[in-house]
Parts: sequence; C-alpha cells; structure tokens
Amino acid sequence: MTGSARRGGLSRRGLIGSAGAGAAVAITGAGAMAATNRAETSEAPAWSTVAFHGEKQAGITTAAQDRLHFAAFDVLPSATREDLVELLRDWTAAAARMTAGNGAGPSGPLSGPYDSPPDDTGEAIGLDPANLTITFGFGPNLFTDAAGADRFGLAARQPQALRRLPHFPGDNLDPAASDGDLCVQACSNDPQVAVHAIRNLTRIAFGRAAIRWSQLGFGRTSSTSTAQVTPRNLFGFKDGTASLRAEDTANIEAHVWARPDPEAAWLDGGSYLVARKIAMHIETWDRGSLREQENIIGRTKAEGAPLSGGEEFTAPDFALAGRGGRPLVDASSHLALAHPDHNAGARLLRRGYNYVDGSNQLGRLSAGLFFIAFVTDPRTHYIPMQTAMAANDLLSEYLQHIGSGLWAVPPGIAEGEFVGQALFA
Amino acid sequence: MTGSARRGGLSRRGLIGSAGAGAAVAITGAGAMAATNRAETSEAPAWSTVAFHGEKQAGITTAAQDRLHFAAFDVLPSATREDLVELLRDWTAAAARMTAGNGAGPSGPLSGPYDSPPDDTGEAIGLDPANLTITFGFGPNLFTDAAGADRFGLAARQPQALRRLPHFPGDNLDPAASDGDLCVQACSNDPQVAVHAIRNLTRIAFGRAAIRWSQLGFGRTSSTSTAQVTPRNLFGFKDGTASLRAEDTANIEAHVWARPDPEAAWLDGGSYLVARKIAMHIETWDRGSLREQENIIGRTKAEGAPLSGGEEFTAPDFALAGRGGRPLVDASSHLALAHPDHNAGARLLRRGYNYVDGSNQLGRLSAGLFFIAFVTDPRTHYIPMQTAMAANDLLSEYLQHIGSGLWAVPPGIAEGEFVGQALFA
Repeated sequence: MTGSARRGGLSRRGLIGSAGAGAAVAITGAGAMAATNRAETSEAPAWSTVAFHGEKQAGITTAAQDRLHFAAFDVLPSATREDLVELLRDWTAAAARMTAGNGAGPSGPLSGPYDSPPDDTGEAIGLDPANLTITFGFGPNLFTDAAGADRFGLAARQPQALRRLPHFPGDNLDPAASDGDLCVQACSNDPQVAVHAIRNLTRIAFGRAAIRWSQLGFGRTSSTSTAQVTPRNLFGFKDGTASLRAEDTANIEAHVWARPDPEAAWLDGGSYLVARKIAMHIETWDRGSLREQENIIGRTKAEGAPLSGGEEFTAPDFALAGRGGRPLVDASSHLALAHPDHNAGARLLRRGYNYVDGSNQLGRLSAGLFFIAFVTDPRTHYIPMQTAMAANDLLSEYLQHIGSGLWAVPPGIAEGEFVGQALFA
Repeated sequence: MTGSARRGGLSRRGLIGSAGAGAAVAITGAGAMAATNRAETSEAPAWSTVAFHGEKQAGITTAAQDRLHFAAFDVLPSATREDLVELLRDWTAAAARMTAGNGAGPSGPLSGPYDSPPDDTGEAIGLDPANLTITFGFGPNLFTDAAGADRFGLAARQPQALRRLPHFPGDNLDPAASDGDLCVQACSNDPQVAVHAIRNLTRIAFGRAAIRWSQLGFGRTSSTSTAQVTPRNLFGFKDGTASLRAEDTANIEAHVWARPDPEAAWLDGGSYLVARKIAMHIETWDRGSLREQENIIGRTKAEGAPLSGGEEFTAPDFALAGRGGRPLVDASSHLALAHPDHNAGARLLRRGYNYVDGSNQLGRLSAGLFFIAFVTDPRTHYIPMQTAMAANDLLSEYLQHIGSGLWAVPPGIAEGEFVGQALFA
C-alpha cells in the first residue's frame, strides 16, 4: 500500500508532479495539512489559470472558455443571514482554491483524516484548471421572496434593476430551468474541471443551499476577445459577431459594468447576468433553404458577413436595397433586431454556450443555446431588445425560450474578502 | 455580398483555408459541386483524422477520444428492408465524409442549390474533426421485434448472442434510455464535432428512422491505448485501469472480436457493444470516508493501486491479508468482482464516458457513467460479471443502472461498401 502518499496531503499539482516523477511523495502529519495545496515541484507542468481575485469577478471579460457548467441555487428556508454569509465565505475560499488548480478544501482530495470524507471529490486530480473561472450572482429572490418577505434583511439594498425578467411573447418557461437565489457560472476549457467546480460548491452548500437547476454547455457561442475566432451556433451560423470584446474597454465600461446606484452601492463595478435557455428547433431549421436561413439571420452562412456586403465585421447597411427595392438585410432579420442602431445603442457582452440535453419523446434533439449576457442594466440592455425580437424576429419561429434568470453580479473580490461582502456590511 | 463564396462548394477544410488567407474563394457551377469536399489548399492546417474504412470499424480500438455523442435509433414501422439498406448506405457515405472533415453531404453546408436546404447543417464548418469516429451497431429488435415478427427478413441471421440483456438485480431501466434498433457512437476530441455527426445522421435518417434516445458524455473514463493516462470517474477514482488496450493485440483478438458464428457470418470480425447508463449517487458517495471509498473500490484513490500494494498496474493479490487476517482487497470490492480471475478470465475493452444531465428535482446532479464495452460475446463477457456485481459489489449501493442496450457491431467497411452489407447479401 502506498499509505504515505495516500494519506499525505497531495495537491492536484503535487500529485501530478509526483506521478510524473514515478515516485510516491511522503508528506504526513500536521505540516502536510498546511502545505497541501500547490506543492511547487519542478516536475509540475505549467497550468493555465485565471486570477480569481481582482477588481472584477473573473469569467466576464475573460476570454470565453470552451465549456460551461452553470448552476442556480436556492437558499434553504431554514437558513439564516449568518448561514448565507458563511456559505458565501466558504464558496469564495473554495473558488479561489479551485481556480488555482487546487482542491476545493484546504486538505484536498487525498488527505485529511483518513476516516473522514475528503474535502474535495477528486475527479479533477491531475487536471489542468484550463482557465477555470467561477462567477457568482445574486437573484431577486435573495432580497425579497415571492411573497414580498425580506428573508435576510437585504430588501433595502435590492437594486431597482434586479427584478424577475418580464414575460416575453412566446416564452414557455420551465420553473425547473429558471430563476434561483444564487447563480454560479463555472467555465473552463476542460468540462470535467467545470463539473468538478459546481459539484464541490454544491457539496459545500449542503444544509444551507441546494441546486435548483444546472446546465452544461459544450461549446462557446461567443468570443469575448479579439484573439478568438467567432464560433458557430447549432443553426450553423457564426454567433456573437457583434458581441463586445474585452479589448474594447470604452464600450465594456459603458455597456457591461453596473452604473453607480446610491441604494445599492455594494454592486458598484459589478454587472448583471441575464441567462436564457433557448431551445432551437433544429430539425425545422434544417429544412429551410440556404437563402431563407441567410435572410432570417441577415448574414451569410459562410463568412457571417451582413447581406448588405463586406466581411464578418463590416457594419451592416440597413438602407441598401437589392432587386425590387427591398433592403438586402431584412428589417425583421436577427441581425437587424439585435443591432445597437435599433436598440438605443445598447450592446451586449455575450458569453453563451451550445447545449444538447439528449433527445425528446418526439425523437428530436433537445438542443439549443444557453444564452448568457453581462450587461450594465437589463432594463436598457436586454428587456427592450428581447421584447422586440420576441415579437418580430424572423428567427423566433425556430426558437423557444424555456429557461430564464437574472442575477446581480457583485464586483471583484479582494484577498481576504468574500463575494458580495459589501452587501452585508 | 460574397455570393460566389456563399454559393460555391466550400468544404470545411476549404473554407478555413480561404478564411485563413482572408480571401473569398470563387468556386461555382457543376465543377464546384463535384470538387466540394476537402479542397487541398496549402493554407489548410493539418487535421486529426481517423481512417473510416478498414478491416474493423473505427471507434473501438481507436485511442479513446475525450467526448461522446451516442444515439439509439428506431427504424420507422413504415420502413421497408429497402429503406433500411438505403439508410445504411446513406449513413456510411455521410460518416466517411464527416470523419474526413467534410460535410455530411456531397455539396456541404454552403453549396448546393441556393433555394434548397444545405446537405450539411454547418455548425462544424472550420472545425478539425479531432479524431472523429462513427461506429454503427444493430440491435436485437432489428431482427425480431418484441412480438417476434421478422421485420426485415433478417431473423434467420440474428446471432444467438444478440438478445436483449437480462434484468439484473437493482436495474431501474428507463425505456427512453434503453435499447434501439440501431446505435451510433460518435466520438471526437471536440464535442461540437460529435454533436454535428449525430445531428446530421439524424437528419439523413428522416422518414426511415428516428432517434429513440441520445446521450452526451463529456469526459472519457477509459484508456484504450497504453499512451493514454487513466482518467477519473465522478467518484474521483481512476477508472478503466484493467480495461484492454489496443496494443495488447492477443487479448483484443480473444476478448473483443466476435467469434465465427455459422448462422451469422456477416458479423465475423465484428463485436458487441454493451451500453449501460449508470447513475451515480455522488452526494452520498461524497459523505463516505477516504478509507471506506478505497475499500469499496479496492484501490487507492491517489494512484489507483490495488490495496494489496504496488502501483496502478500491479496485479492485485486477493489472498494478501492485513490486520486481523482480513484480505487487504475486500472480496466484495469493485476491483475483486470485476477482475478476470473472478470472471472466468473475461476482459473488457471499456470505452465509457462521464455524463451530467443537469440536476434533478431533489437538487442532485443527474450524473454518472455512460458505460460502453466492446466484447466478443456478452454471454461470457458481460452478463456473468454484471450478475455478480449487481448482487455483491459494495459499489452497487452508490449506483443505479437506468439505461441499457446491446448491439452487434459489424466488421469494418471497405470503400464502396456500406456498414453491415454482408447481412443483406
């Protein structure tokens, strides 16, 4: 038995280092417990990490990772304000550890008293965090519940903009895929790392909060950096061409970060996360002609260029008419309705993912887009746009919104703080 | 408008080449239609492909890719034997194209008559196939339906071993995640490529067969090559240590390929695919101590070494006793019950994947293992083992089998042939 290695405090990095050297590393006793995480061995490979602490939460302007595990949690009715604070404190500590490539708890998956459950579940042992980010948000119900009760003494600090999104035409929302007191967005280039993060935060929440719903996304549908190629959605089109990129700092400032709100100063420098689970009727879409598909989107399928000409990033010319005097870009196309010119200048930082949840009873893939956007204010930056699109977008025929949520995303976390700490001050 | 590029026959490779060069490639007319796929441009990057044609189907001994999309199909009641043959012919052609990095149809996602639906859905444009393999299997019901009817004149050629798996103790099978006339296993290192393959095969099957169920797997849980590191399952343990590797050709020959069967010569050189959807009660597991977890598995969590000592690939010593005279490897551990010594020498080529299907109404992750094994005969190589494990495996307390299927996997496909052609000869 490799007892010493088994009981010793091996971090994910430490373990891979020792395994790489083909030798068991003997670390035992109290010293090991303190030194468990991120043993700096020369064999350790260079890992890809994103800083957890900072002025903003990571996972917003971070270059969009390839995979997503998103979860919404409800705080248990029995939980007190102190329980909530303790939960946020524990989550913050665990997120800081995991994003650095360590276990969720101070001991890690392979140490701690041998007769106790490990404080990490172990499936990410040896895995590169692959740019793991963990981003937290607070839902409207955390402040005032459906009956109007002030659950945790936070009602006076609820931002005006943080209200359940309105019903939009065509919405067919599943309560089991909507809302939630808290949300956690875990993104990584390795899905096992993202799943591990949500699973361990869920475990840590035990007795205080429980998962309400969760969603895996297998492929990003937006770029948040100019260094990234625009990916394709399940309609086969490039998606998120017009989404804001991190390098466009002036527009990020104007459109992503929450504006100062004297009644909710705790959110200054934060943002709002809009999530929409959008089922796509891909079988119907697939029967449309290329001409019809391009007209609906307003862009070419090959390059994603506006139908008014140019290349992917060419500005569309909504006035340019073709044969018969009709505009080349249909006024009811997705491009036209989502464009800032038709939304009072509003722009979105999109960070959505393609999903497939198996298939349904009709033999159709349960597939679509898990839409995520970070916005300065949903009242100016999502609600008007979605109202117009739900009513007029040619694409709506092929979509159904089945899940929805809005969360306030606190600003970044300094070392020693916990997420949303100012809300409780 | 970039009309020529849009209407031109650009392959996935061709498109990325032209995009890389920043120029639209003009290919029009009938010549383009013939030359659409895999234009050999010097800008094209080197793609990772696995040969589709060969003596065996790819996706069995192929080094296990990271991601899975698996689908089970039922042939429609209205379909004739000729429809079935035509479907298999169409699927074979599409699989050959897609595994080479081309579109599902001869025209590709961006060409064909502009007023017709494209013969490829487009979400894989520009994506490396990332070792895409597509593996086909035939279920028992394709030969004889539940009422015993010979649907397609194939009953006389149904292998004796191809019968619905028996009910095992503890099974709680969902018909909507079990069985199916046909199965398709799509594996790739890029999940969008695997999803694209199943989606297009589904589209091609329209009017002849429909998806019965499908399953995404986000992380492989087995290695099928000695060059691969053993991955971890959602219990945090290395999984598939004892699984056969492609390099072990003698054992692959003995344990994977179907033995000659005079009544089913069409399957000679093929295999059987056993699929089991195994829900894992990870929340319960996470409350077990490290000692308990290791005792249940029979291996250390760190290295995956047998508890009788050594390293991951050391043979377990089931007789070696520890304190109090009890064997170090519990006789009811997963290791002991799955070991060839206790299964008449049977060994498996495992090719399973971790899955997470969101979370359930109890706030638990709907997570587990989508078990896949390729075996020479399920009567010797799966049924006895699972019978013993379901009754005695300590791990059973943390598992529930919720889906099941068995398919005969025809041998490899020569160019110009279709999968399973010998069955219809």
